Amino acid sequence: MSTAPTTQTSSGPKTQKETKQKDKVTLIVFSGELDKVLASFIIATSAAAMGKDVTMFFTFWGLNAIKRHERKIANPSFILRMLNRLNMGGARRLALSKFHMLGMGTSMMKNIMAQHKMPTVEEFIEMAHEMGVKIVACTTTITVMGLTDEDFIPQVDLKAGAVAYLNEASSSSVNLFI
Amino acid sequence: MSTAPTTQTSSGPKTQKETKQKDKVTLIVFSGELDKVLASFIIATSAAAMGKDVTMFFTFWGLNAIKRHERKIANPSFILRMLNRLNMGGARRLALSKFHMLGMGTSMMKNIMAQHKMPTVEEFIEMAHEMGVKIVACTTTITVMGLTDEDFIPQVDLKAGAVAYLNEASSSSVNLFI
Amino acid sequence: MSTAPTTQTSSGPKTQKETKQKDKVTLIVFSGELDKVLASFIIATSAAAMGKDVTMFFTFWGLNAIKRHERKIANPSFILRMLNRLNMGGARRLALSKFHMLGMGTSMMKNIMAQHKMPTVEEFIEMAHEMGVKIVACTTTITVMGLTDEDFIPQVDLKAGAVAYLNEASSSSVNLFI
Repeated sequence: MSTAPTTQTSSGPKTQKETKQKDKVTLIVFSGELDKVLASFIIATSAAAMGKDVTMFFTFWGLNAIKRHERKIANPSFILRMLNRLNMGGARRLALSKFHMLGMGTSMMKNIMAQHKMPTVEEFIEMAHEMGVKIVACTTTITVMGLTDEDFIPQVDLKAGAVAYLNEASSSSVNLFI
Repeated sequence: MSTAPTTQTSSGPKTQKETKQKDKVTLIVFSGELDKVLASFIIATSAAAMGKDVTMFFTFWGLNAIKRHERKIANPSFILRMLNRLNMGGARRLALSKFHMLGMGTSMMKNIMAQHKMPTVEEFIEMAHEMGVKIVACTTTITVMGLTDEDFIPQVDLKAGAVAYLNEASSSSVNLFI
Repeated sequence: MSTAPTTQTSSGPKTQKETKQKDKVTLIVFSGELDKVLASFIIATSAAAMGKDVTMFFTFWGLNAIKRHERKIANPSFILRMLNRLNMGGARRLALSKFHMLGMGTSMMKNIMAQHKMPTVEEFIEMAHEMGVKIVACTTTITVMGLTDEDFIPQVDLKAGAVAYLNEASSSSVNLFI
């Protein structure tokens, strides 16, 4: 009689943990390249469709995928203005990691994707957002690059750092750095 | 007496799950670059030699590593013919991610590897296949790129999508995106 | 009464395993690019600060981050001398994966990081080392590239191969390939 609760107590948190592990997918989207961002969203939306709890943590160049297009560069520092001019960002501006060829390869790929009715990055963001995928922007990169809240699309759920990422990741069954 | 089966029941599936987690390694091979493909096969064959259950999921440019060399480009669409001409593929055609230098760096690296009796990608594929590493080609990329079964080497075990990948990955102890 | 020890026995090792899984982070640092190396160290030092057991496994170009600056290239083979001349390495020589622009972009980024009092790679290595992060250099790459112990900084804890990596990784809750 005294063992029943013991067993329950010991199996209770374990079951919970296993369930959590099964259900969580955490992706770091480091790269801002079109192909890698697409791969991230294919994995994220598939996982969400399977009922998993998905977090996409956008950092470094990956932030470009979740920047607004119409944002103005109003940074006081010349060097940051230059960086942000170069590193313009916005889901429609991402380039392929291979065969970009001054835009030719990238637009060829977009063309092929459209023929196959594959979503664009913008459509993927919307889909992911509606499916409950958590879109997180990395605070460290935001600070270093001199960006502000207005630089990002409204689908961003949260800004967080490496500690928050690691907390999510430790209880995830799938962790990828893309 | 009633607790014995409870304990067994609760530890039974857990042990099974833990065993499974220890035994599974799932790699996404996204990049078709020689160095990253080699790294993937070094990890995959080492894991297989340790008795682990290994799945390599080839997607995007990674598919180049498992394409036939002699395949003909017979796609009806001009844009797909162009893409497949550019993105020729085949294990012998992979280039380094750094210092490719019009092929000089890549052949230098192959030369050094041969001196150290390191397997080539083709030999690694054969080794991995014989060791029971599951070689999976991503259906989405295959469709988008207009490829067919004949474009791939016979060592490909299976064509599958993101959902199949996520099922494998959730029960793997090591998941990498390469 | 007989069930109490059974429960204990079955929960004992599990708890230990779960604790271990929660506590371990294992990173493969494959890329020698400044941004990716920085991302690796941000994750590694954050995890160490959270009390996690962190291993960074440097391989391929990632080895450049943990090479000495002052090392002389004394390899008997011409081809290896050439490779090591090209692939000089040292934490201060790492370049951005994007916008390197003959060094302009890279130094711009270093400038911005200094303004934000972000540590340099050299400072990160020292921090990580002091926090107990295990810095491992990949034996296979070392051999293939004709490097020796003198080519590396003293903070390297250990040289090991893929099997040692996989052993660490299978019991880690977070595994990334960067």
